[in-house]
Order: sequence, then C-alpha cells, then structure tokens
Amino acid sequence: MTARARVKIKDVATLAGVSTATVSRALSAPDSVGPATRKKVMEAVKATGYRINSAARDLRQRRARSLLILAPNLSNTFFSRIFAAVQEEASSVGLTVQISDSRIGRDRLLSLGYDGRADGIVLLDGGLDPEVVNGWRLPLIQLSEWNDAYDAPRLGIDNHAAAGLAVDHLVGLGHRSLLHVNGPEENVLAITRRQGFLDAASRNGAEATVFPGDFTLESGAEAARRWAGLDNRPTGVFCASDECALGFVSECIRLGCDVPGDVSVVGFDDIDFADRFVPSLTTIHQPRLEMGRAAVKQVVAMMQGTPKVEADATGTPPERIEAALVKRASTGPAPA
Amino acid sequence: MTARARVKIKDVATLAGVSTATVSRALSAPDSVGPATRKKVMEAVKATGYRINSAARDLRQRRARSLLILAPNLSNTFFSRIFAAVQEEASSVGLTVQISDSRIGRDRLLSLGYDGRADGIVLLDGGLDPEVVNGWRLPLIQLSEWNDAYDAPRLGIDNHAAAGLAVDHLVGLGHRSLLHVNGPEENVLAITRRQGFLDAASRNGAEATVFPGDFTLESGAEAARRWAGLDNRPTGVFCASDECALGFVSECIRLGCDVPGDVSVVGFDDIDFADRFVPSLTTIHQPRLEMGRAAVKQVVAMMQGTPKVEADATGTPPERIEAALVKRASTGPAPA
Repeated sequence: MTARARVKIKDVATLAGVSTATVSRALSAPDSVGPATRKKVMEAVKATGYRINSAARDLRQRRARSLLILAPNLSNTFFSRIFAAVQEEASSVGLTVQISDSRIGRDRLLSLGYDGRADGIVLLDGGLDPEVVNGWRLPLIQLSEWNDAYDAPRLGIDNHAAAGLAVDHLVGLGHRSLLHVNGPEENVLAITRRQGFLDAASRNGAEATVFPGDFTLESGAEAARRWAGLDNRPTGVFCASDECALGFVSECIRLGCDVPGDVSVVGFDDIDFADRFVPSLTTIHQPRLEMGRAAVKQVVAMMQGTPKVEADATGTPPERIEAALVKRASTGPAPA
Repeated sequence: MTARARVKIKDVATLAGVSTATVSRALSAPDSVGPATRKKVMEAVKATGYRINSAARDLRQRRARSLLILAPNLSNTFFSRIFAAVQEEASSVGLTVQISDSRIGRDRLLSLGYDGRADGIVLLDGGLDPEVVNGWRLPLIQLSEWNDAYDAPRLGIDNHAAAGLAVDHLVGLGHRSLLHVNGPEENVLAITRRQGFLDAASRNGAEATVFPGDFTLESGAEAARRWAGLDNRPTGVFCASDECALGFVSECIRLGCDVPGDVSVVGFDDIDFADRFVPSLTTIHQPRLEMGRAAVKQVVAMMQGTPKVEADATGTPPERIEAALVKRASTGPAPA
C-alpha cells in the first residue's frame, strides 16, 4: 500500500477537463461519450492512477452481486462444466453468474470492467489485449488459459507436464513414432502442450511429428485423414483436446483402422464423452469442477481484499490444480 | 414501404463525422451536445432522410444494450451452440449477450427483469414460476422449452411430430416393440416427446415401453442396463436426447450387444458428437443456429415495438422451426 493520497473522480475530471458525470459515463458506458472525450478521460485515469478501488464503495452500492465469466467460445464443450461449477460455487456465496463471449470487440470489452454489471471476473481467454484486461478495475482471475502480460493471478493445471504424461504413457506402450495434433497456433494452451509433447518425445528419444488443429472434432478428423496418407504412420497420437482426439479416432475407424490395434490415441481434458466413446478415450483429466470452484473462491477473496493467490511474474501458477492421465481403451501396445 | 434502403443511425453518424451515440444524444437531448455538433447532425439527418423511429431511439437509449439468455443447466451440450448463435446474431446488431443459470432462486430471478442489466431475454427454461416470468417488464421470447402460462411468444420445433418421425423410422425398419427413454418428468420437452412417442407407436400398432431418464449420458447408460435385463427386449429405442442415446449405445456395446444388429437407437437434437460417434447416431436434427438467430431477431423486433410473433394461447408456436430425421448408422432392420 502506498502512502499516496487516494485519487478521486474529481481529480480525473479536472485533469481531463470534463465533468465528473462525464468521467463516470466514460467509465460505465463508453459508448455514451464521443471517442475524443473517452480518450481524454482514459488518459487522465492512467495519469492519476485512479482506481475504482476508491469507488469500491460505489461498487458495493451497485450491488451487482455478480461474477462475470469471459470465454472465447461459448460452444466449446470443455467450458460447459466449468460454467456450471462457477455457477454452483458462486451461488453458494450469494453471487449470480453471467457468462459472456470474450470476443466482442475492444470497446465492449473495455466497458465490462466499469459498467457495474459484475463485481469480479473469471477470465478463460489468454488471447485478449493485455491493455484492455489490465484496464479493468475489478478482481480478476485467469482460469485455464493465461497471458503473462495480464496483471492477474491464475489457476490451472501444468499443461507442459501433462503433455509429458501423455507421451510417457505412449512410449511406455512401445510407441516410438509419435504424432501431436496441435490446438490453434496462437493459443497459449496449444503452445504449451505442443512444447510439452516435443520435450517429452525428445527426452524419450521418440520421433515427433506435429499436425495443425484447432481443438475441434473436425480438425481431429482432418488430421486422421492426413495421418492415413503417410508412408510411415506414427503409431502413438496425442491430441491437444478430447474433441480433437474423438474426431481423430472416429475418422480412423471410418477409414478401416483399428484403435488401438493400429494406432493409440490420447486426448486432453476428460470431457464427459471421453468415457462414453467406443473405444473410451485415454486422456488427461482436468478437474473442471475443482477449477471452477477454486476460481470463484479466489475472486471472492479478492473482492474481500484477501487474495489467496498473488500474481506471479514467472507465469507459473502458484496454486496449481492437479491433472492426471486416465488410461482407457483408446491406447494399447504398439503394433509389432 | 419505400424502395429506398433504410437509413441507419450509423449512416447519419458517418456523414456527420461523429459517433452514433452523439447522433442519438443530439436527437434525443439536443442540449447535451454543442451547437456545432447539433448543426452537423441535423444536416446529416436531413441529407440522408433519416427517420427517427421512437422505439428504435429508445432501444439506443437503453444503457444495457444487452440480451440475457436464461438456461436451466449450463453444462448441457445442447445449449452450447444456441449460446454461440445468439451471441453471433446479437453481436451483429450491436448487442452483447449474457448467459445466466435460470435456477438461481426466485428473488434473483425476479430482479433480472428490473435491474437494468438486460434489454431483452431469451428464455430456455419452461419450468420457472410463471408469476416471476410474467412480472418481468422486458421483451421476452421462449426458445426450445416453453410454458403455456408464460405470457410470451415462443420459438421451437414441433416436438410431438418429431418424436413421431423417430417412431415411423423405427417401424419402417420392421421394429414392432419400441422403448422410449424419457427426459426429466416435469420437463415440457420430455412430456411432449413422450406423448409423441406413445401416439405414434399406437398409430403404428407397435408395443411401447417407457423408461425414466434425465437427458444425460449416464441416464442413457442406466436405461441400457435395465433394457439388457428384460426378457423380451424392445429392438427399437428412441431416446429423449442425443446424450441419453449415446449413453445407451455406449453401454449396449459394453454389454456385448451390437448396434444396430441387436438394437436400433434414435436420439434427439443432433449435437456435434452424434455424427462422430461410432456408430454414428440417427437422430432428430434441431437447427440450433437457426433457433438462436430467430430468437434474437424476435427479441430485437419486440424491443423496437414490432414483434413478428404474437403469443398464442394454444401453446402452438406460430413461427415454427423445422426439425428433420437424420438417418445414420445406429438404426437398421429389426433382427429376425
């Protein structure tokens, strides 16, 4: 805590040369003021170090009593149980939950931190402009995805190590030539899992190939068609998500291959369908209920001024959620 | 209607070189902008022939500029693509979307209609207290689920007829003994699909059995275990949801049965996994993208005072979305 006197909204207004009402509007509903005014106000906010901390009182008076979840893709099956877990945990402490798509445009996104709709944010998107995210004046936690430039604590599993578990499992079954079907190129989870795959393959002295993908069923099916066309097919496949892995397995079977007789496939996430697919999918279990609950606990602690997790400059999550390999029917001994 | 393309507020703003918010303010509260700005805006209004629709102006003045989706279960895979479609369509008309769990308690729910967070509601839950729903003072549409006591228009498929399509398909394949795995007992979709199943089975002179279920994978697996224990197993099964059907198929295979050799299974919804499961699932396709888009169009029309769909006391949706049977690999001729 610095000794600096607390900056008031009036200070911002004076510096920006506008009324306090305009500052308030610029912060709570950016669309309601012109771009020039908005720019002046935001510059004054930055210059004065104005924190709506001093307006924590306002926040309480607004009584939003609500958490906001921001996710990059509302149709992604991986998120659905996290949504439900956040909802359940938040409800138990008297907060409602709203979910928004995080890809709604910069202006809209900026206003989320000011418009009084939420008291805290659970952010599932590592691909937003850090300036926008760091401009929010609300308790914030990064969950699952992260971005080192966000000034906020984060919760998640060790994706690099988890990819290593998948590779070790395949190598342990005798697979010496491995394929990774990647997630979206700039996604931090995809980058980390890919690196974990490459490092573990190298450590094990296994051959490593990487195909592009985007976490979806269709990208897994596409990778399977490409795999089937190879002269020397890798026999062990690690996909960056379960949907991708199930798409891969499904297409392999359509192409007449046996899983795991011809090829072993490991997914990532342990969505509900992983256990019910035929063959059931060996995968990395991410405890999504636990992740959602822990995120709410953390944001609530921050709202109460007692965060349990501090931001860490190394990008390593200080409170880590344990992931584990779940062995099922989609992996078996490498073909002779 | 004139042949001229409708002038939008954005056209006025562009010509005047100001933001749409400024145009809106200049028109609704002329004193709130400077004389020079006001002059520029009024000249642009004249030049473009912009007509102020008072309801549209109200729409712009609403501060939330947001739609609320209320759904009974955020972890249900069926909803995820509807969420994404609503998001996309809303975004195209400048609205943000928030999703909330609809089972958050009566007080919370009541306040949603008043707290200024949303300008309109897309309701996916037919099981709420009608007093609460009818107390909201916001444009509202019922999507997918419905409740005849809600005083709001609704959009959705004909669930009774769709269940009939499933039964006719099974009977056409020679199945004479049919099983329905039901959804949650008090759910309006479950009740309607069950009745559609019973009526179509009766019309076809087929034997009909109903097992309880709750739309989940696990309830489908449970039903399969119960089915396997029967002395005279029905050979044609219609499940109230795809998740339930995939759980049923998965468990049948684990129990050593062949699908569709021993039993044919039809789902409902056509979620993404239906096509990728092995065997791929015959199911009722619900056009979820179309449903999400149509719901947004309707709510926006209501916000502008020009609803396209009126509430109908008979409970029949006046604007119906077409569903269709998609034949895949999980159904085949009845065993001899």
